[in-house]
Amino acid sequence: MSHTIRNKTKLVSRVRRLKGQLDAVERALDDEAACGAVLQLLASIRGALNGLTGEVMEDHLREHILAAETESDRQHAVDELSAVLKTYVK
Amino acid sequence: MSHTIRNKTKLVSRVRRLKGQLDAVERALDDEAACGAVLQLLASIRGALNGLTGEVMEDHLREHILAAETESDRQHAVDELSAVLKTYVK
Amino acid sequence: MSHTIRNKTKLVSRVRRLKGQLDAVERALDDEAACGAVLQLLASIRGALNGLTGEVMEDHLREHILAAETESDRQHAVDELSAVLKTYVK
Amino acid sequence: MSHTIRNKTKLVSRVRRLKGQLDAVERALDDEAACGAVLQLLASIRGALNGLTGEVMEDHLREHILAAETESDRQHAVDELSAVLKTYVK
Repeated sequence: MSHTIRNKTKLVSRVRRLKGQLDAVERALDDEAACGAVLQLLASIRGALNGLTGEVMEDHLREHILAAETESDRQHAVDELSAVLKTYVK
Repeated sequence: MSHTIRNKTKLVSRVRRLKGQLDAVERALDDEAACGAVLQLLASIRGALNGLTGEVMEDHLREHILAAETESDRQHAVDELSAVLKTYVK
Repeated sequence: MSHTIRNKTKLVSRVRRLKGQLDAVERALDDEAACGAVLQLLASIRGALNGLTGEVMEDHLREHILAAETESDRQHAVDELSAVLKTYVK
Repeated sequence: MSHTIRNKTKLVSRVRRLKGQLDAVERALDDEAACGAVLQLLASIRGALNGLTGEVMEDHLREHILAAETESDRQHAVDELSAVLKTYVK
């Protein structure tokens, strides 16, 4: 899984940043912050999550589909992407 | 901000569940899990985040817009929702 | 429904432009254009549809919710927006 | 482009249905229908457009990426899908 190794550090730090953003939502709820502020935090989390997902999809296309070692690996990777796309484009 | 108090416990537990789901992504990256598995985890996080956001938007509509105490509060709450909607419907 | 009257011309011309974009998709399919070209046309239609929808939502917030003449009208308009938001943020 | 030929009739009829749905939006605007009704029509158009797009993406994955005749064709088809995905997952 050379693909995951290559980007692992960068992806893990994006995941950690997302958890930090969720901590901010939890604090905002605890502090009874304005609902509008909570909505803004959630909107930026959505942006960051989409950015992370787009990057993993791109890597999947390049490393697991384009650079697949066997036809069977490629078929499997296409099935995985297809299943995930169905949840995004619906 | 009676609104936030009323739902606070439920919303905080949803936020914590989201952080747990992100922990699973981090573990999957550390374990060099299949890219497809990471994509599936990210897709379910997106669903959970949207569910949480939809609930906060709904509460915002009911508590801060419909039940606003003054016209100025209502105007402010409409501006907040409008700003957030622009990031979702684009 | 002064709201709809005010923006009607502009909204109708956006709807017609969308139909023109769909005509281009139909021609691309008839000409057996590259699948990638069809996907790009569909992506720009999505952008234009979201832009139109965002504008109608914004008008709905301003004219039917904020400027509602009665509490019952406002309640009804909030219910309508809420129902539609559920389909966007899910 | 055997791919496009195979599904052409079905895809064209979906595009025509979308244009019919946009005609309904235009009529609703002309009739000064309730804004909420227009929002509902737009939400169902979004669903139909996403359904059509999902189908074209799926075909693209199967026919142009998985079943590509040359590596260069596959590379090109991956680039096309990647460009379009960036506009969906952002």
